[in-house]
Amino acid sequence: MADLGTMERSGMDLQAILEAVLRDAENYRGHGNLAGYIPALGRVDPTKLGIAVALKDGRSFAVGDADEPFSIQSISYVFALSLALGRTGSALWNHVGREPSGTPLNSIVQLENAHGKPRNPFVNSGAIVVSDRLIDGRSPDLAVEELLQFLRARSGDQSIAIDEEVAMEESNAGHLNRALAHFIAAFDNLEHGVDEALSVYFRMCSVTMSCRQLARAALYLAFDGTDPLSGESVATPALSRRINSLMLTCGHYDNTGDFAFRVGLPGKSGIGGGILAVVPGVGTICAWSPGLNANGTSLAGLHALEKLVERTGWTIFV
Amino acid sequence: MADLGTMERSGMDLQAILEAVLRDAENYRGHGNLAGYIPALGRVDPTKLGIAVALKDGRSFAVGDADEPFSIQSISYVFALSLALGRTGSALWNHVGREPSGTPLNSIVQLENAHGKPRNPFVNSGAIVVSDRLIDGRSPDLAVEELLQFLRARSGDQSIAIDEEVAMEESNAGHLNRALAHFIAAFDNLEHGVDEALSVYFRMCSVTMSCRQLARAALYLAFDGTDPLSGESVATPALSRRINSLMLTCGHYDNTGDFAFRVGLPGKSGIGGGILAVVPGVGTICAWSPGLNANGTSLAGLHALEKLVERTGWTIFV
Amino acid sequence: MADLGTMERSGMDLQAILEAVLRDAENYRGHGNLAGYIPALGRVDPTKLGIAVALKDGRSFAVGDADEPFSIQSISYVFALSLALGRTGSALWNHVGREPSGTPLNSIVQLENAHGKPRNPFVNSGAIVVSDRLIDGRSPDLAVEELLQFLRARSGDQSIAIDEEVAMEESNAGHLNRALAHFIAAFDNLEHGVDEALSVYFRMCSVTMSCRQLARAALYLAFDGTDPLSGESVATPALSRRINSLMLTCGHYDNTGDFAFRVGLPGKSGIGGGILAVVPGVGTICAWSPGLNANGTSLAGLHALEKLVERTGWTIFV
Amino acid sequence: MADLGTMERSGMDLQAILEAVLRDAENYRGHGNLAGYIPALGRVDPTKLGIAVALKDGRSFAVGDADEPFSIQSISYVFALSLALGRTGSALWNHVGREPSGTPLNSIVQLENAHGKPRNPFVNSGAIVVSDRLIDGRSPDLAVEELLQFLRARSGDQSIAIDEEVAMEESNAGHLNRALAHFIAAFDNLEHGVDEALSVYFRMCSVTMSCRQLARAALYLAFDGTDPLSGESVATPALSRRINSLMLTCGHYDNTGDFAFRVGLPGKSGIGGGILAVVPGVGTICAWSPGLNANGTSLAGLHALEKLVERTGWTIFV
Repeated sequence: MADLGTMERSGMDLQAILEAVLRDAENYRGHGNLAGYIPALGRVDPTKLGIAVALKDGRSFAVGDADEPFSIQSISYVFALSLALGRTGSALWNHVGREPSGTPLNSIVQLENAHGKPRNPFVNSGAIVVSDRLIDGRSPDLAVEELLQFLRARSGDQSIAIDEEVAMEESNAGHLNRALAHFIAAFDNLEHGVDEALSVYFRMCSVTMSCRQLARAALYLAFDGTDPLSGESVATPALSRRINSLMLTCGHYDNTGDFAFRVGLPGKSGIGGGILAVVPGVGTICAWSPGLNANGTSLAGLHALEKLVERTGWTIFV
Repeated sequence: MADLGTMERSGMDLQAILEAVLRDAENYRGHGNLAGYIPALGRVDPTKLGIAVALKDGRSFAVGDADEPFSIQSISYVFALSLALGRTGSALWNHVGREPSGTPLNSIVQLENAHGKPRNPFVNSGAIVVSDRLIDGRSPDLAVEELLQFLRARSGDQSIAIDEEVAMEESNAGHLNRALAHFIAAFDNLEHGVDEALSVYFRMCSVTMSCRQLARAALYLAFDGTDPLSGESVATPALSRRINSLMLTCGHYDNTGDFAFRVGLPGKSGIGGGILAVVPGVGTICAWSPGLNANGTSLAGLHALEKLVERTGWTIFV
Repeated sequence: MADLGTMERSGMDLQAILEAVLRDAENYRGHGNLAGYIPALGRVDPTKLGIAVALKDGRSFAVGDADEPFSIQSISYVFALSLALGRTGSALWNHVGREPSGTPLNSIVQLENAHGKPRNPFVNSGAIVVSDRLIDGRSPDLAVEELLQFLRARSGDQSIAIDEEVAMEESNAGHLNRALAHFIAAFDNLEHGVDEALSVYFRMCSVTMSCRQLARAALYLAFDGTDPLSGESVATPALSRRINSLMLTCGHYDNTGDFAFRVGLPGKSGIGGGILAVVPGVGTICAWSPGLNANGTSLAGLHALEKLVERTGWTIFV
Repeated sequence: MADLGTMERSGMDLQAILEAVLRDAENYRGHGNLAGYIPALGRVDPTKLGIAVALKDGRSFAVGDADEPFSIQSISYVFALSLALGRTGSALWNHVGREPSGTPLNSIVQLENAHGKPRNPFVNSGAIVVSDRLIDGRSPDLAVEELLQFLRARSGDQSIAIDEEVAMEESNAGHLNRALAHFIAAFDNLEHGVDEALSVYFRMCSVTMSCRQLARAALYLAFDGTDPLSGESVATPALSRRINSLMLTCGHYDNTGDFAFRVGLPGKSGIGGGILAVVPGVGTICAWSPGLNANGTSLAGLHALEKLVERTGWTIFV
């Protein structure tokens, strides 16, 4: 993969490319289904579509609704995993695996076969275990606060917050996640209580951010764990690479293989319609559009990413 | 990932690195279990260990038993897929999926849930479907001959051949694969007969090659589908990238996530103890040692690859 | 349950009851789907409907198409099990279980979880194991001949035979059953070869008999293993009771609980549309109508049995 | 099956038979494992063994520890089902199935495949649904009170009560059952809340009764729904027969087929070590011994029932 300097010197105009990609994805705008399990997600305007790219040098490019905040949902798993791994180290892997799951996002079947050890940190059950480990003996509120501070520092915006209405609706509608948490607890694989773990989990899913903020916040993953703007080491190089590899093999539920096949970048989808992608050594991308395909990934967002990669040649596979 | 020229100018000595890696992996040599389901694989000397690297400019580096032929087993799936995709194009994806499987290599459960469509081309059932499509209306013998010619051309060695004893033993011991093939046929997902598809399948698994030959043969996958030595376009860039992405998400059965996590390169394991890995833009690696871990991947081979990546910085995730 | 003498002395007229039941079931005649996986079964007149009852004293009562031969399909499992258990004794239970299966008739999933031991003798995989054990070191032809002689002796009709066209079609369409057999063989749970076991299996499914013949043939199961007409001991009392209990808990695929709930008698369905039921101490019933419900049991036949039990009070549960 | 009068006139002495059965089962006394998931069940003396028989005329026979109260656990499901079916009629079957499950007692896998509809009322998930329907718009306390009154009336003992220590321990250790309840609720298959349904469920499992009381209480199931002592109609004949059929096809988790095969009577096991069995037209049996086999059924209790049936000829299959 050519580095960005070379690309730009040869005339690549990222803003123009993003605008072309927006047009490419136009036909998919408004298609697909909104996540309907909680009212707040079902009320989002389905025609929204935004794309943002963040680069090493601090520049960011954006088109469409890239500055509009949306519910990041399970994109939060990436940041929670970064923090939890930093806290607990590789001991985390005693409680959650790192193999692709081959079953839909909420599958409790896998959990039964594996005696309560979720298959990876990017299925719901795995993210519940990560939430639990992130508490690390503190109160759930402190764990949530740590995550918020991290997101604010990474994106350079102190106003990032939880949408409390969404968090309450998540909790009210959360029978499946409660079932997962109790099931994990039945196998003694929660350090804290079911309510504590879920208290973190439901709130981290309810954080609201824009494409531009998310791309900015994840930049450390493209640069071996170091935030290229602040110079701060957020994760070790090994950790950063491994989070990327987990995104590639497990980041999109039952869409993961398709995403790797079509986009070829580490990424993470959320059912709020956001997709975060990492271009190692170059930067980060975030696309958002609320309409989902059958496997819970943004329809227009996925198409936009595919086209962006096509137009830029950004892929880790050559 | 720095390019090789830069690396070598800065003093990287690949031969010395490979020798260090051989010492790194010494403790794992002879550990693990041989694939015992056919006698020929069970008779291999378990202490064998070889590693080879092939580069763009035609140079190859090798240590240990890197020139000793072994049974490539499911590493053959990568080459068969390249040929079958070239023949049938994306219509192949109507017959086999591209999602990670989350179940052991032979699992028929997945196949039942998916009504006879294997989850990806790198589980046994998927490779049987690829074998069937590779026939493409010809005789099974012609399909096998095409694969052999391809391997000979790519590795530059006309003597590459099938070990007929292994092929016969595969066929004799092949109840599980016969079950898979009949099951697929029951759902009308074979174009030719069960015996035809298996005739290709059992023979492609029984090809014998050395580490150096395998690394050399796969070089097109590191250079966007073009063999850098002959300049021949073997696959389109898109196809080549996608085969890499499939290796990354599905290449090692229930070990795939672990391999991506620890090695971070597209790869494919065979239960003969070989592991092939692709370093996009740089070259290819093949390690071989017959002792397997619980998931059917070479124990010493995996360790060697992990150390080689550590010592070279070769990873697609930064 | 009152005995028949008492019932008849109190005015029960079985012929009149059967005629009423035929009217009861009239609305279901021709409904449901024919088993379409082989042409011969798909060509049967869907409006056929017959019911026969056989009693201890040799009398039989019949209405509708009760004397028309049809393909007995998996009703044959009951007789094959009687013979195989007689031959091998309780050693058979090392190779096949006796628990209800909870999955559709052909499920290979259960077989994978149980490492090749079918869950009971009345799912297809279990009947293949019973077929294999029935061979007992002889030729498959001798095993089939023994079964035919048994059916002829029990029903008092020397002309009972295999429909060779059906047998050939079963074999041609038998990918699923071949998959099951190879899968069982992969776990070393066949005594003879896959082809030998299937040769018995496909032919026993293709025997042709009428309702009246089937009811007559099964009479030993209602009288503790002794054929009440010939006085011959066909099975030990313990064996006979246990075959009845297996019919009750496993006799109708995923319809078993429903059958026990609505009919309350040991029974066995075949996808040719026949249903055999045993009234312990009283006699046997066979109903036949080719249209099947979603779980592969005769729609009109099941309704007829339910009504017959209602009108006679024949049930084992009071 | 000969009626009891005939049997006794021909010299059958039930008390002597029970004493012989107690000796038969002596070798199994104290074997097997106690249910250890809650402390109270783990503290029971493992050498306890009791058997009681209740007859139509009010006589009861008992040996060993037949008058010692124990935790009835899921034997309670039978009585709860009788009451819930009486309240809601066949609408109950919209919420719980009636097919054998083929998976262990707590399996959540089945529940996922069936979209939250438990397979039958005698697996834990099904009993939770029955508990929920038993509430029927009232308070959970009233539902529990109704069940207690029913058990007191049926067994003629006003002192029957819940062991509150067991109920609290059940609730504390109930992660698996909470997971099941939330999972059912996620599919909108609970009428009341998770906590309400479980409040009934945990308490009904914690009722304490003796063998003699349980046999007495279930007598209506042997006489077509009418309590033969009080003459009271407790269930319709159809309902009573159907509960018997459900006990036969689903009463012992993954032991059900084995129980039908060896005992041949409708029955229900509890992991407190109790087993209830119904002899239609004759009476009821209850055996108790706390040591369990691998599938959660009393080891000595099962053996005792098998021997009792052998010595009396009580079976529904002839």
